[in-house]
Amino acid sequence: MPLPEIIATETLATTRFFKIEALDLRFSNGVERRYERLPAGGAEGVIVVAVNAQNELLLIREYAAGFHEMQLTLPKGLVEPEESMEAAATRELAEEAGFAAKHAEFIKRLTLAPGHMGFAINVVFATGLYPKQLQGDEPEPIELVPWPLQRLDELLSSEEFCEARAIAALALCRPLFSQLLDAADELIKREN
Amino acid sequence: MPLPEIIATETLATTRFFKIEALDLRFSNGVERRYERLPAGGAEGVIVVAVNAQNELLLIREYAAGFHEMQLTLPKGLVEPEESMEAAATRELAEEAGFAAKHAEFIKRLTLAPGHMGFAINVVFATGLYPKQLQGDEPEPIELVPWPLQRLDELLSSEEFCEARAIAALALCRPLFSQLLDAADELIKREN
Repeated sequence: MPLPEIIATETLATTRFFKIEALDLRFSNGVERRYERLPAGGAEGVIVVAVNAQNELLLIREYAAGFHEMQLTLPKGLVEPEESMEAAATRELAEEAGFAAKHAEFIKRLTLAPGHMGFAINVVFATGLYPKQLQGDEPEPIELVPWPLQRLDELLSSEEFCEARAIAALALCRPLFSQLLDAADELIKREN
Repeated sequence: MPLPEIIATETLATTRFFKIEALDLRFSNGVERRYERLPAGGAEGVIVVAVNAQNELLLIREYAAGFHEMQLTLPKGLVEPEESMEAAATRELAEEAGFAAKHAEFIKRLTLAPGHMGFAINVVFATGLYPKQLQGDEPEPIELVPWPLQRLDELLSSEEFCEARAIAALALCRPLFSQLLDAADELIKREN
């Protein structure tokens, strides 16, 4: 199916954080339709799947304004200009969870609701953690919640952990978790 | 951590599809901050994980205005007033993929970017499929892409399949896929 033709675009609203754009489209069958979207704001995001030496995931509990409630999720934020994705992941981890990572590995670029918004967020897997606290722009300290990898299924079905991009990020890292858990099992076997 | 207090709210913009709201917040440590969000629009969404009798996932390829490109994803849409989630899932499946489902099972409610928007979408697992085409509001026919469950990992790592809520939906249904594949294996064994 060929892409529709963009006949015109119009900025409908611009606020400090958001922009709404109208797209006048002509589809290949001649149908014309006005769509609205939140276009990409320039910077992409990173979402960090960090595992410590005890094979615990670093989760955070923070205020979610969209629902006016506290929610359990993964550290995340925007990549700054000139910053690599891996550096952004380590910085956000230090700001939100108090740890930096020796190893950061890009896993996959995710979209959120691509029919309506141009936002993308990149999953980064972080290991080799060590304590490092950086000051972020958070209005209050964020609660750190270490979660054992062995209890991953319980986390995925928990009502408090319901953010699609966080669930997707963990699902994509699952093979890497298995490697970490297998290596830990191997170590215990050798020690006995 | 207690929830911040909402001191004031202000509607910054309203368009046909979106609303932007400002929230003036006071956190428990006294810090005041203005947040912006896209509040819930009333209707929640459904995203449909449908598997046919050949153990294929029903994917669709459709126009994603946020990126102005065609993307592979799952059927989805809004729950209409007075409609159950399961009924909405079957209707969207018939509109977008040309199938209805005898069995529809709610799996989990997902948020997208809860720090910034109040949108939620409900994962529904659908089986017992039979052909049924309903007319939706799509401007052009949607391409149906049946995808064998056995090739799930390939799908999850594919660049064209990158929507976080679709990846999360599949990850949450993975144990159900295993049951279907095990049952198919069992059937083949018995027949031999």
